Amino acid sequence: MLHLIVKYMWWIPVVVLLSACATQPPLRGTGDLGIVIERATGQVQVIETSGRSSLAQVSGLGDLSHASVVFSRDGRYAYVFGRDGGLTKVDLLTARIVGRVVQAGNSIGGAVSQDGRLVVAQNYEPGGIKAFDADTLELVADVPAEFGSEGKRSKVVGLADLPGNRFIYSLFDANEIRVTDLSDPRNPKTERYPAGKQPYDALVTPDGRYYIAGLFGEDGLSMLDLWQPGQGVHTILPGYGRGEQALPVYKMPHLRGWAVAAGRAYLPAIGRHEVLVVELGSWKEVARIPVKSQPVFVMARPDGREVWVNFAFPDNGWMQVIDTFTNRLVDSFQPGRAILHLEFTPKGEAVWISARDDNKVAIYDTRSRQKITELPAASPSGIFFTSRAFRTGF
Amino acid sequence: MLHLIVKYMWWIPVVVLLSACATQPPLRGTGDLGIVIERATGQVQVIETSGRSSLAQVSGLGDLSHASVVFSRDGRYAYVFGRDGGLTKVDLLTARIVGRVVQAGNSIGGAVSQDGRLVVAQNYEPGGIKAFDADTLELVADVPAEFGSEGKRSKVVGLADLPGNRFIYSLFDANEIRVTDLSDPRNPKTERYPAGKQPYDALVTPDGRYYIAGLFGEDGLSMLDLWQPGQGVHTILPGYGRGEQALPVYKMPHLRGWAVAAGRAYLPAIGRHEVLVVELGSWKEVARIPVKSQPVFVMARPDGREVWVNFAFPDNGWMQVIDTFTNRLVDSFQPGRAILHLEFTPKGEAVWISARDDNKVAIYDTRSRQKITELPAASPSGIFFTSRAFRTGF
Repeated sequence: MLHLIVKYMWWIPVVVLLSACATQPPLRGTGDLGIVIERATGQVQVIETSGRSSLAQVSGLGDLSHASVVFSRDGRYAYVFGRDGGLTKVDLLTARIVGRVVQAGNSIGGAVSQDGRLVVAQNYEPGGIKAFDADTLELVADVPAEFGSEGKRSKVVGLADLPGNRFIYSLFDANEIRVTDLSDPRNPKTERYPAGKQPYDALVTPDGRYYIAGLFGEDGLSMLDLWQPGQGVHTILPGYGRGEQALPVYKMPHLRGWAVAAGRAYLPAIGRHEVLVVELGSWKEVARIPVKSQPVFVMARPDGREVWVNFAFPDNGWMQVIDTFTNRLVDSFQPGRAILHLEFTPKGEAVWISARDDNKVAIYDTRSRQKITELPAASPSGIFFTSRAFRTGF
Repeated sequence: MLHLIVKYMWWIPVVVLLSACATQPPLRGTGDLGIVIERATGQVQVIETSGRSSLAQVSGLGDLSHASVVFSRDGRYAYVFGRDGGLTKVDLLTARIVGRVVQAGNSIGGAVSQDGRLVVAQNYEPGGIKAFDADTLELVADVPAEFGSEGKRSKVVGLADLPGNRFIYSLFDANEIRVTDLSDPRNPKTERYPAGKQPYDALVTPDGRYYIAGLFGEDGLSMLDLWQPGQGVHTILPGYGRGEQALPVYKMPHLRGWAVAAGRAYLPAIGRHEVLVVELGSWKEVARIPVKSQPVFVMARPDGREVWVNFAFPDNGWMQVIDTFTNRLVDSFQPGRAILHLEFTPKGEAVWISARDDNKVAIYDTRSRQKITELPAASPSGIFFTSRAFRTGF
């Protein structure tokens, strides 16, 4: 018997090799990959935008309500931030979880450093930012958002990466913008800038120069010119709703760098049925565009010629499209029930739209604004493509 | 004997599978990959920018003097255009040539359609553009650049992709800009715009709105606003060298969309030791920045805060850096002998610089402007990273 085992032992490495071989998925590029969050089931779908198909489903990511995603600089890995403070690293090629830490009690997203070596989370509870090694998810820096004399900590919002492995973010409870330099992560250096009341989200322009924070506590926005930080924070569009009754806010709008088009920023007016248009640099109000309802995402098509807008409840089945050349609405349509998010392909020929209550992702041609196809998804929310890895401020 | 062969036939699929297994390289993302042209040997190196290393060398690409590269929308394949008219498709993951056609007598580059399905070559001889299926390299459209009554054909320069699967290019011999719509490749539709004398290269702004062609035959540049094509071509910076003796031109400068920073275009003055700065939209001349020699590439760091410039012979060992906030030179240094090209990493933390006569690629940190490392390469010229796949106008 032993004789037989020894005789056929050469089979062991062959079987191991064959198994390894059988489990390695085929080679493929990662430039057309992405993630769709399925919030109800705590799963994500790995999708590809060339053939417009779903490749795999990954589970075990915890609470994915309000989840967001950033990508490794090689486009292979997604870092998924869950509302429960979980940070999960997903290999898009094998569709497996390769790392997971529960790093806070309540987290709302993150960013990757310019050099790709750090993943940074912005946390509500305990308030602050934490930096992790992008390979191992080992904690390398913990920067609490302390303020006042009693060491209270603020919720952190509006985190974005900046050139030089720096990160910028806002303190909702402390009316402050902070910039933390993590080029030496063991020795973070933080600068503080007093800002307007209750910043709730923010954007960095694609060049990393201007940081604009939306304010919940006052009419107007806070702007910091990072090429002239000594000038401090300016208030822009002050009192844009002055003298008018504030509407109840059904859903906080989102601000991100993709709302910059044709040298202007297109901003959701909080609690109002308007998109505000401001010229970068001069900060003059260019236009107020009346829209159907309270805007949530205001996103420029990658060529900047159009801005697509979705809305808060009860009008969250609608999308509207603004022509940035005329600043007029050019289309209104209903892609499905409960439109939570949209993501343009890198060159903008198509847009993927999540319709939560229809359990589908609808894919539209951006030129004809006709639906190309749709994919089933369980209560889809955020959609994120790997091309984000190449952009500053995401 | 036959008995033995039949008995061990089960080994055949095992051996085939093992070979396939052994030859499949490990899975990896493609977002940090790129190509370095080794012009003297007709080879390319596949490189990666995370660990800053060379992964493989690929030969058999023909004449690679003045070669340029574009990428498939998934980032896996490089399309290499050789001066001899060869179009070679290289798989970056396996480092193998997977397709090659000799499609013209003399070609100077190409572009990929917005939807990623077409690769288009711009040709000197015979003058025109040709579109190929991005998967198979099958010819799907041939659009000659005919002009005049006798069916002469012009050299084509300054090709760039536009939204809507359109392509824009200039006719050196016909003083014209043309836009060809290839959304139905079997039925190309071309529009013609009379332009200045002898356009020699061009750029599209990153949003795809403005096309600017440099002119060899007159002082000034030709600009077409693609959001208002009915207005036709305008001359901008007319007579920028007026009243001064033209210098002999040692090397034609290059124009590409990466010269746009902070709402302005930074343009090499042909035959002059100057970089011209013009405001987009108003087309006012903002500055003329004196530089060491005749500029060749004028490239914005991805954050737009700096513009890096290399030069024609005899000063082609120098680089200069312009601060776009002050429009002043902030650095001059010599990375090596015969600097032919430079390419920034997608988020701009590093720049790769080819030094042909030192047979090396030098990699610099863009913040400290100190050299990080260098890689050997045989007479390197162009350097191209896969992040180009996500940008319009490349």
